[in-house]
Amino acid sequence: MTINAELDAYLQPRLQAIEQALERWLPAPGERPRLLPEAMRYAVLNGGKRLRPILCIAAAEAVGGTMEQVLPTACALELIHTFSLVHDDLPALDNDTLRRGKPTCHVQFGEAIAILAGDALFAHAFRLIAQQVEHSPPERVVHVLKLVADAVGVDGMVGGQVEDILSEREPISPETLAYIHSHKTGALLRASVLSGAILCGATPAAEQALDIYGTALGLAFQIVDDILNETGDPARLGKATGTDRARQKATYPRLYGLEASRLRAQQELQNALDALKSFGAEANPLRWLAHYVVERER
Amino acid sequence: MTINAELDAYLQPRLQAIEQALERWLPAPGERPRLLPEAMRYAVLNGGKRLRPILCIAAAEAVGGTMEQVLPTACALELIHTFSLVHDDLPALDNDTLRRGKPTCHVQFGEAIAILAGDALFAHAFRLIAQQVEHSPPERVVHVLKLVADAVGVDGMVGGQVEDILSEREPISPETLAYIHSHKTGALLRASVLSGAILCGATPAAEQALDIYGTALGLAFQIVDDILNETGDPARLGKATGTDRARQKATYPRLYGLEASRLRAQQELQNALDALKSFGAEANPLRWLAHYVVERER
Repeated sequence: MTINAELDAYLQPRLQAIEQALERWLPAPGERPRLLPEAMRYAVLNGGKRLRPILCIAAAEAVGGTMEQVLPTACALELIHTFSLVHDDLPALDNDTLRRGKPTCHVQFGEAIAILAGDALFAHAFRLIAQQVEHSPPERVVHVLKLVADAVGVDGMVGGQVEDILSEREPISPETLAYIHSHKTGALLRASVLSGAILCGATPAAEQALDIYGTALGLAFQIVDDILNETGDPARLGKATGTDRARQKATYPRLYGLEASRLRAQQELQNALDALKSFGAEANPLRWLAHYVVERER
Repeated sequence: MTINAELDAYLQPRLQAIEQALERWLPAPGERPRLLPEAMRYAVLNGGKRLRPILCIAAAEAVGGTMEQVLPTACALELIHTFSLVHDDLPALDNDTLRRGKPTCHVQFGEAIAILAGDALFAHAFRLIAQQVEHSPPERVVHVLKLVADAVGVDGMVGGQVEDILSEREPISPETLAYIHSHKTGALLRASVLSGAILCGATPAAEQALDIYGTALGLAFQIVDDILNETGDPARLGKATGTDRARQKATYPRLYGLEASRLRAQQELQNALDALKSFGAEANPLRWLAHYVVERER
């Protein structure tokens, strides 16, 4: 089988389990509160790639765990990712109207509900991390709580997003670009890999290797995201392209050019693969995912 | 001593410890991310009443614990409260420009930074709950994580806020008003009381009594908030009054009148005090706080 075929065979049952779990664990629409469960479901259940949950599961399996053992945390990571998209799309931030081919949450439900739906998704993510205690020792759950909260907060995703916004229409410095990339997207991708490993009792050596893998993968992902924003097919991506350039965002292609950006993504792919050298076939899905992240077209 | 003098003597060292801990545990301004630590500190370090941390500490002490044992969670509750204020004040929600006598966060820092500062405060709160493991068994920390996440999310504070917004300019029903009050403010106040108790190993009976206390206190608090919005002194409150009426919000005074609202607040005070009957002097601060909540003028 090709890598793509092997990855597809790996993903299919796992993506199905993730979709079912998200569907089951998201609040059902009811009498009160109105609109909020609908807005949360609208934002999450829209055919996303589910990369963060998949990375969490693949890392768990790479250290001898199973998908079932980490499913609450895997879904929590997807809710956090979705919350960040809902807030980033708001008019005061990126003002995006299209996401995965559909109107963004605030276009569909109004700005107030979108802000609160993001908040509720964030709270619900931590609710699911608490639920992880049904499968994992509580000290591991608290470790993951700290890891994820750090990956999201001022020194993680949100800090990266702030620098991303403040850097619009500014001259780009390599330092600021590296900060934005490692924080805005990289931190949560790294935390996704590490949380799966930690919950399944990874050895310190395995954890360290997966830390390097997750960091390289996160950087590669964001570089490719920047490239796709310049060169991708809007229909395939489900969102507008050229928006980074229009907003004068700090991106890899703008600072280094497309060719150097592609090269750097390949280097990070190699770094990610190198980090997994001490693992056997149990880490093959992580290897396929690293290839996918760099070679994807959406 | 009068109740006020006793409460003041109780509060003084605890408020000082809370302020110091918030100051220490909030991120310090640095090179990157710009503005975000400043906005977080601006929103939090502004002379708030710190009612939620105080309730957490007083409940801990009522079951034989100490302030030091619960300080990270006490501060986390204040960060969550502040995050909710920052988002509620946004133009798309309540559009408030004054909070505790100062410009609201989005007036001071712009809407994008205010949205992200709220998100970062929320993440930081869970970071502090994880830090609670330095003082408490991890299974108790996970219990508190679940309690707090539930109190904030779709069936808690955020759900109440959604109904509050959707109910503007609608005919008020007693059921919707009760939902808004118990969720928007009540849920986090109740969780503040319960988390202090749970972290310090409260018996099931004590936890049940404090649950009733916290629920009654939460309702009393919101009724008095509604009354103060109608009759309070803007200078003392540090925010505009009459805003609920202008926005046609669902409030106690609007549905039941001022006199019946005052009576109901007194009844809830009595319910809160009755719930503490099995406690001795160790619960006196909780009793004084219940009086304070109903009799306060700001």
